[in-house]
Amino acid sequence: MKNKQNKKSVAIVGAGFGGISVARKLAKSSDLEIHIIDRRNHHLFQPLLYQVAMAGLNPSEISVPIRRLFRRNSNVRVVLAEVDNIDINSSTVSYDDIKAKFDYIVIACGAKHFYFGKNDWEVLAPGLKNIEQATEIRRRILTAFEFAEKEKDLEKQKSYLTFSVIGGGPTGVEIAGAIAEMAKTTLVDDYRVADLTQTKVYLIEAGSRVLPSFPEKLSRRAEHDLKSLGVTVIKNTRASDLSSTGLQAGANWISCKTIIWAAGVKPASIAESTDTKKDEQGRLVVCEDLSLPSNKNIFAIGDVAVFYKEDGTSLPGIAPVAIQQGQFVGKQILNEVKGRPRGVFRYWDKGIMATIGRSKAVVCSGNLQITGFAAWLTWVFIHIIYLMRFKNRVFVFFQWVWAYFSFGHGARLIVHKTWRFYSGKKITYGSETESSET
Amino acid sequence: MKNKQNKKSVAIVGAGFGGISVARKLAKSSDLEIHIIDRRNHHLFQPLLYQVAMAGLNPSEISVPIRRLFRRNSNVRVVLAEVDNIDINSSTVSYDDIKAKFDYIVIACGAKHFYFGKNDWEVLAPGLKNIEQATEIRRRILTAFEFAEKEKDLEKQKSYLTFSVIGGGPTGVEIAGAIAEMAKTTLVDDYRVADLTQTKVYLIEAGSRVLPSFPEKLSRRAEHDLKSLGVTVIKNTRASDLSSTGLQAGANWISCKTIIWAAGVKPASIAESTDTKKDEQGRLVVCEDLSLPSNKNIFAIGDVAVFYKEDGTSLPGIAPVAIQQGQFVGKQILNEVKGRPRGVFRYWDKGIMATIGRSKAVVCSGNLQITGFAAWLTWVFIHIIYLMRFKNRVFVFFQWVWAYFSFGHGARLIVHKTWRFYSGKKITYGSETESSET
Repeated sequence: MKNKQNKKSVAIVGAGFGGISVARKLAKSSDLEIHIIDRRNHHLFQPLLYQVAMAGLNPSEISVPIRRLFRRNSNVRVVLAEVDNIDINSSTVSYDDIKAKFDYIVIACGAKHFYFGKNDWEVLAPGLKNIEQATEIRRRILTAFEFAEKEKDLEKQKSYLTFSVIGGGPTGVEIAGAIAEMAKTTLVDDYRVADLTQTKVYLIEAGSRVLPSFPEKLSRRAEHDLKSLGVTVIKNTRASDLSSTGLQAGANWISCKTIIWAAGVKPASIAESTDTKKDEQGRLVVCEDLSLPSNKNIFAIGDVAVFYKEDGTSLPGIAPVAIQQGQFVGKQILNEVKGRPRGVFRYWDKGIMATIGRSKAVVCSGNLQITGFAAWLTWVFIHIIYLMRFKNRVFVFFQWVWAYFSFGHGARLIVHKTWRFYSGKKITYGSETESSET
Repeated sequence: MKNKQNKKSVAIVGAGFGGISVARKLAKSSDLEIHIIDRRNHHLFQPLLYQVAMAGLNPSEISVPIRRLFRRNSNVRVVLAEVDNIDINSSTVSYDDIKAKFDYIVIACGAKHFYFGKNDWEVLAPGLKNIEQATEIRRRILTAFEFAEKEKDLEKQKSYLTFSVIGGGPTGVEIAGAIAEMAKTTLVDDYRVADLTQTKVYLIEAGSRVLPSFPEKLSRRAEHDLKSLGVTVIKNTRASDLSSTGLQAGANWISCKTIIWAAGVKPASIAESTDTKKDEQGRLVVCEDLSLPSNKNIFAIGDVAVFYKEDGTSLPGIAPVAIQQGQFVGKQILNEVKGRPRGVFRYWDKGIMATIGRSKAVVCSGNLQITGFAAWLTWVFIHIIYLMRFKNRVFVFFQWVWAYFSFGHGARLIVHKTWRFYSGKKITYGSETESSET
């Protein structure tokens, strides 16, 4: 069956958890020629991205050049490019000025933020999906404290010291907890005028509880932990209006200068133009072997895809799903090249977890539910293990140990949006400068 | 003489090496109220900035929040603001909408790049003075290799693999050596199409030798070391024309996509509007106690000032000068508050050094001249010692040890200029996108 003269070609679109898993599975096969196409040069360890936004970690500590991961695999080519189109019928991928045909295509381009059609909210309330957004959120939070320190009008000072996080899922909970904690421990001694103990953090959740994908008991515990950090949790409430001075949450107007978006997501843009069956969120519907209904040599995995379990529910958009799907797809391609039949994908649910702050987390695995310090240790341990595939593990570990004992946040850099130093321009806060740049 | 009810006020404009040294000297005095005004929230360890540009270090590893340095000193206030004007006659500093009078003002706002009047060159050839510029240079260098990998036209590929550094001082030498080294060791295995051993680095120096401030013997050695790394040194030559496709160096056109500026500097903008005696470069001329001729309570130190020695020559714009001047000014203010007279500044020249690459450096201290591995170890040792004042020393040390043994560059992140991910836009190289953003 082997035909070394005639290698099969595989295109992997996106180098997130899903895409990298496929590539890792295939990298050692000499029967295959693999192209990884991504508009970024790095793979990002997204579960720790909020730590970059909170000045706890450096961007490069949670990212690794894609090329570096496959430097020893001469059959893997990494292409820095944005894919314009994937043609299902002809099995072609278009990028730059190239239209290339592949024997297999794996669509693994993930999700982006969804503002429920209100696209102008993006500028007012950045989400947390990539490094630029993380450093922008970091810039806004740190700048808000600086402006609070300078502000003489007490009402305005209060609005600089008020932060709203929209969306009570794991990311929203992590961000809200971290802002409250950072203001009241790490930063509090650094300011002379602004009293950072007066920092207010609002977490706004449309549903009836935070962490809706967790068991109710853990939601209650997370809410309790958030309150103990000083976060005000507002449930059953949607943000109906956003501006540069605050937001409307139900009947209440919250006056605040910093808003962070952790609510809706939708599939990456390339999914829209792909001509295949989709669910109401726009995710690509896949068969039991994760291929598309109309072309069995094109797979979709991770956040861009929707896989229905036997009970009719779908798998959540989390890293373990993308990783297991990537490994599965890799195995199917390897099997098929060797003339073996395909299997059926089954997700092994190892559990879910979220951290709320220093020594506070919730973990749910099967019937096991852990909270508090034990859950936090579990969270740290598992994240270190997963990062261990990268060289960055050592530095992250040191940063964490250091931060834990010093209550420090090591990466408190305010970096400006444009590299040419804003000559002549005033130092401005957050979205106030946006109009001139967009 | 002590008058606690009536504290003297000191404004320090700029938190570089000079400004921080003054503040450190004064921070423990209860007779003084100190304002540090900077448009950045961080103090930057500039001698290692080129390592950020070369993806060797993270920005936060060479920077520290100014507030953090003085968190225990309740008489020190840190203000994030850009100073608009310093009025010599009335001893006032204007920033934001405030015009504040101080008993003492220390002007320590440093230098910026000077393009000999050709301001459009700034976009084509960024310099290396702040974090944004360092990450922009990093982005351009890493992106150039990515485009070389994708380019099918061999001439164009060659121009992506060609880098020009303008200016043969310590910064230019460090950058040129580091690019050549990175291409030929760290990165060479990561690319499949582009042959990074073919990378060309040009170092263009207007004078007759590189490192003109060093003894001739060390200049020759540095040139020899650069050549051994594959850098082409072009002396006695000025860049007369720059474009996005290359530059004119004397009679030769160098076709290249990446140009880095390490040539002229001039004082920061605030110096221009300050009404006092200046030299032909625009630097503020200071008296023997580092005060301005027309107001003895206003001092100027570091790169923004020019201090003439007894032999008529002036002190170079390097960190040790700024540090010693800062300490001196701090001491004069402390003395004066106690009713003691001022002294005369004398610079203690401990020496100068420059690194060329892994295990290659030149050090000159008095009659002592060191080269090669011993000089490099000296360089590393001294930079670690100076960084030791910051918490960052531990991480920098680990990064260096790691990088030395792994030949790695840990921070190889291509981060885009705008935080909102260039939706719909093509991935572009360096200055090609500038027109739309400026």
